[in-house]
Amino acid sequence: MEEIKQQTVVRPETMERITSSALAEKFISEQVEKIRAKVGEKKVLLALSGGVDSSVVAALLIKAIGKQLICVHVNHGLMRKDESEGVIKLFRDGLDANLIYVDATERFLGRLVDVSDPEQKRKIIGDEFIRVFEEEAAKIRGISFLAQGTIYPDIIESKGVKAHHNVGGLPDDVEFEGLVEPLELLYKDEVRVVGRALGLPSSMVDRQPFPGPGLGVRCLGAITRDRLNALREADAILREEFDICGLSKTVWQYFIAVPDVKSVGVKDGKRYEGWFAVIRAVNTVDAMTATIEEIPYSVLNKITSRIVSEVEGINRVVYDLTPKPTGTIEWE
Amino acid sequence: MEEIKQQTVVRPETMERITSSALAEKFISEQVEKIRAKVGEKKVLLALSGGVDSSVVAALLIKAIGKQLICVHVNHGLMRKDESEGVIKLFRDGLDANLIYVDATERFLGRLVDVSDPEQKRKIIGDEFIRVFEEEAAKIRGISFLAQGTIYPDIIESKGVKAHHNVGGLPDDVEFEGLVEPLELLYKDEVRVVGRALGLPSSMVDRQPFPGPGLGVRCLGAITRDRLNALREADAILREEFDICGLSKTVWQYFIAVPDVKSVGVKDGKRYEGWFAVIRAVNTVDAMTATIEEIPYSVLNKITSRIVSEVEGINRVVYDLTPKPTGTIEWE
Repeated sequence: MEEIKQQTVVRPETMERITSSALAEKFISEQVEKIRAKVGEKKVLLALSGGVDSSVVAALLIKAIGKQLICVHVNHGLMRKDESEGVIKLFRDGLDANLIYVDATERFLGRLVDVSDPEQKRKIIGDEFIRVFEEEAAKIRGISFLAQGTIYPDIIESKGVKAHHNVGGLPDDVEFEGLVEPLELLYKDEVRVVGRALGLPSSMVDRQPFPGPGLGVRCLGAITRDRLNALREADAILREEFDICGLSKTVWQYFIAVPDVKSVGVKDGKRYEGWFAVIRAVNTVDAMTATIEEIPYSVLNKITSRIVSEVEGINRVVYDLTPKPTGTIEWE
Repeated sequence: MEEIKQQTVVRPETMERITSSALAEKFISEQVEKIRAKVGEKKVLLALSGGVDSSVVAALLIKAIGKQLICVHVNHGLMRKDESEGVIKLFRDGLDANLIYVDATERFLGRLVDVSDPEQKRKIIGDEFIRVFEEEAAKIRGISFLAQGTIYPDIIESKGVKAHHNVGGLPDDVEFEGLVEPLELLYKDEVRVVGRALGLPSSMVDRQPFPGPGLGVRCLGAITRDRLNALREADAILREEFDICGLSKTVWQYFIAVPDVKSVGVKDGKRYEGWFAVIRAVNTVDAMTATIEEIPYSVLNKITSRIVSEVEGINRVVYDLTPKPTGTIEWE
């Protein structure tokens, strides 16, 4: 009977909260040494989603071991507008990373055709992600370590016990000597301070949380390419306008969702059936409850006007007024 | 070959706009005489929906000929909350009208099961309405006249030409001597002044426009009883809160629509899938274009809180931000 290795990870009470760039520099130096000592001349693999955690891990590892880190960025076709391009630009062009870009859009969207159940959608996206990542891992020879963007809240949520066996669902024939998780004792705010000290731009470090299944859970019900495209464009307009008016600096999370239902409308004097874009913009302290941002009508009106005129297929915009509870932050 | 009788109706340029109760009283006296002269001792039939126009016609005819007027109120099951009850209370109890109340809810909802196409829904509701009204008309002996709440804009819209043959789709075996349309030269604002002079309450006279198919075109897609009930309750809360804060006096039209789609949410700490209520509140001068009312967040938050806590099946509330164009006022 095989024993599953488990390790209890507890942040020492004496560990100082990283709140300044000086403390971040100290943390970075220590981690660079630790990583070099652990990894030596060997290779490390990282799934780089472009989220805060994986981006900071990537930057830290690049500093420590340069091209011994191999980043794999999987574009599942459910990224926000220009998001994968941003990851490539920052890491390959900016940090000279060893980056493998996999455009798996067709695979993901192909498997999601006619799947309307949210749980089923999440499962397909998660499973397919692991499969694509495994295939890429299998192509690369001589990988010894797997890096992960685990942070302390992830560990607290799983009650301090990490199962070190079969991490991330990787197959038994991909054997790693160990994991590299340099952020595993940090809280999110500390990760951001470290990211800034590593020179990552605010657009990356201060990113709002983005769900793993990406736009897949915001293109409600069965995903179609035209509605997904409409969602992506509308979401880009929302983010642009929030940047312009400064709300992007204060609102905790904001995005567009597009339900699978049309209503009548009128464009250019003619009947025009279209979807409607739901604006969601919430603030929260603990993510267990949330309140809506009271966006000024001047901003709402501008966003509405741009979306209905610029986005093919959308004829209405609504604002979700629901706090959590009773509405969750995401719609599915 | 039968000739269809047509009559051109044109409001005389010399006709004074009815803007005061004195002018209304004058109009009422003239019409009472005209109606008595035309109808004599005979009976008149009226489909009384409870809208402004048919209500004012009813009150005027009751004043002129009392119980020679037979009002038929058909409840198609798509009325707003307490609306049919209000019609009965006002006309039967208050004005001692000869009122036949027909609860045809089961017939209408039965025919609408699984019908999701808006045009099809409207057609079924319209056809069924005529059928129910015909059946009631056929039960009553000796009806000579049909009264209708035609107003001048209805005539302008049909280019001044009224087809007097086969009005309202009544069958050939129901023969009328003629029509009684005392409001046919009035504009909407004049109808309201006349209604007030007739002693009708503000809740009836100042009613916002309500579509003939009623809540049927706001319970989007295929109508189900549970979603229709949720819509009716949410709409009642919206109207109550608009009365409380005074918006009901200034906003041209406001209502709830409930699309046929659910989203996840949380109630009492548990996952709760529910529909979402769309608040629509618009102002218009000509109904060809419309702008949204910028409802204060304090009001939106209160309405949202009441709807999600009081209405079974609803877990979210959104506000429709779309002007016309590109959104029509109704959603289907």
